[in-house]
Amino acid sequence: MSVLYPAILAGGSGTRFWPLSRSALPKQFLPLASDRPLIVETFQRIRTLARPKQILVVCGKTHAPIVRRVLKQLPPGNILIEPIARNTAAAIGLAAVRIFKEDPDGILAVLPSDHHVAEPEQFRDCIRQAAALADEGYLVTLGIQPSRPETGFGYIRIGDPLPRHGRKVLAFVEKPTLERARIYAESGEYLWNSGIFLFRASAILQAFHQHLPELSKGFDALRRTKTKPAYDAQVRRIFRSAPAVSIDYGVMEKADNLAVVPGSFGWSDVGSFGALGEVKTADAHGNIVVGNRAVLVDCHNCVVISGPRLLTLAAISDCVVVDSKDALMIVAKDKVQDVRRIVEAVRRHGLKNYL
Amino acid sequence: MSVLYPAILAGGSGTRFWPLSRSALPKQFLPLASDRPLIVETFQRIRTLARPKQILVVCGKTHAPIVRRVLKQLPPGNILIEPIARNTAAAIGLAAVRIFKEDPDGILAVLPSDHHVAEPEQFRDCIRQAAALADEGYLVTLGIQPSRPETGFGYIRIGDPLPRHGRKVLAFVEKPTLERARIYAESGEYLWNSGIFLFRASAILQAFHQHLPELSKGFDALRRTKTKPAYDAQVRRIFRSAPAVSIDYGVMEKADNLAVVPGSFGWSDVGSFGALGEVKTADAHGNIVVGNRAVLVDCHNCVVISGPRLLTLAAISDCVVVDSKDALMIVAKDKVQDVRRIVEAVRRHGLKNYL
Repeated sequence: MSVLYPAILAGGSGTRFWPLSRSALPKQFLPLASDRPLIVETFQRIRTLARPKQILVVCGKTHAPIVRRVLKQLPPGNILIEPIARNTAAAIGLAAVRIFKEDPDGILAVLPSDHHVAEPEQFRDCIRQAAALADEGYLVTLGIQPSRPETGFGYIRIGDPLPRHGRKVLAFVEKPTLERARIYAESGEYLWNSGIFLFRASAILQAFHQHLPELSKGFDALRRTKTKPAYDAQVRRIFRSAPAVSIDYGVMEKADNLAVVPGSFGWSDVGSFGALGEVKTADAHGNIVVGNRAVLVDCHNCVVISGPRLLTLAAISDCVVVDSKDALMIVAKDKVQDVRRIVEAVRRHGLKNYL
Repeated sequence: MSVLYPAILAGGSGTRFWPLSRSALPKQFLPLASDRPLIVETFQRIRTLARPKQILVVCGKTHAPIVRRVLKQLPPGNILIEPIARNTAAAIGLAAVRIFKEDPDGILAVLPSDHHVAEPEQFRDCIRQAAALADEGYLVTLGIQPSRPETGFGYIRIGDPLPRHGRKVLAFVEKPTLERARIYAESGEYLWNSGIFLFRASAILQAFHQHLPELSKGFDALRRTKTKPAYDAQVRRIFRSAPAVSIDYGVMEKADNLAVVPGSFGWSDVGSFGALGEVKTADAHGNIVVGNRAVLVDCHNCVVISGPRLLTLAAISDCVVVDSKDALMIVAKDKVQDVRRIVEAVRRHGLKNYL
């Protein structure tokens, strides 16, 4: 079987974990699910299926030093820099070209850097099945059995079983309304799109050729570069004009050689402070307390992340309280999406140094 | 008329304003109502009725340096040290002896150091009326027209009008139940006991003689001391054995030459974070925000005191959030009494350095 080349996508820069996450330290570098940053968990999780020299990380220039610091086993040359953030299609193309040049039969495993997996052995079983399908030429996604009518994820409508593993894909479905999400979750015919993809480098480059031809031309030219300066200049050229499109929307929704491997490995995208309930154990009062500087009296169903200072709460329920070195945030638990509005307000107040 | 000697009582050490107040910096030294500490407001408020050399401050030894620092106009010799906190009777006795030795006709005006007065001119009018009554030999209290059925204050049942100012006192009433407080507040026959008292030094010493004879003997001996060491030794002796009794309970409730001056001068005892609504103006959403490092999004009826760090809230209602250098506290507004339980919990956790 062909060799597996995991490509960890670490270009994300969200605001949903502010004030823990900052533009200089986005979510993937935070120890949100365990005592290790999510990207380190991701690296270790795939480590038994690939040697460090086969693993790539794609990230922005400013974050490359952090990647080097937290992933000391990773050869520095395996960090691919996106000159500008242009969503996942361009990032994956960059990784695919690199792998194709080294090993035309190589299988690319696209791994978001900021997810949590509670059961890594089951996860690796799914990766093995998906790699086998990728080896047959499929563009493969890991699909997660829905546990709730989530409106924040894309869904995959599953088709007939394939001979050995996995299922055919009838359709990629964009984030649904709550009503549709309920139908999807109950039907048994839909899986969550985990954002984890496996395909031959050659197969995804072929799919780029079909579905994102402009971008594909750029990558063809990149394959032909012979020197580091020529390579760097071509990467800049690609990203300057690349559409900011996801691999889902740009390729997977349009391709037909699709397969999905249904998985159930304690997956969480750790999408917000509210999601910490999926990856951390609550105490008897439903409180999730992270850090050792918090004192709670008569509090219920709170998420409390203490920082360097003492954090005390009394008679508070259903709130998220997050302390950090220089900023503290309190938000109602059912309004965690308002973290975004806090960040906007902080920016409006001219306090950008806190972002 | 006799000379007025204000005695500001600054021996208090509560926990209701933690984490702003600490054992090293209790409430009276905090700028809770304006940009000046409450004790400075108190000093300035009486300043036009008495020269600094007539003003006394009674406080614990550890707080004397703060008093000197914030009240630079006060002669250092006018700070009277309580060797141990023994409630107001002993503190007032100390001030009364000092004044009596200097001016046997002097009138003592007992002023809590940690209250707020929104209308100082009306306050001084009441003090003038009360001083005139004290000059006639009465033990006088300023009484506040109740604006709500408060169960946290003592009440004064008022009797017939006196010839020129004020009213006779029928009874001092201890903190009532809510049911009784409602009756008192609506009756028009009860006033809040403000803890502000005026009497001749000689009159209160006479009252001590009648109602607290043991303590009185100590003060008689103190009057006879001739040297600083003898004075200090006798003060220590008095406080070691003094009952921890309030002037209200120890003297006023038992005395019969009582008068009360009803007042309405925007008084607040600033009894808790919840009471900041009495002394600060809320914004259009009912939020009271102190400090310039707070960002609120969709919050209502909160009290927010920001410290050195950025403090952000979204979708939070009816909470008190108080930041300080090294500790932050969040409590439901209708449970501000739970601050006490937080303080106990912090102590139990062995984090005494935060208290």
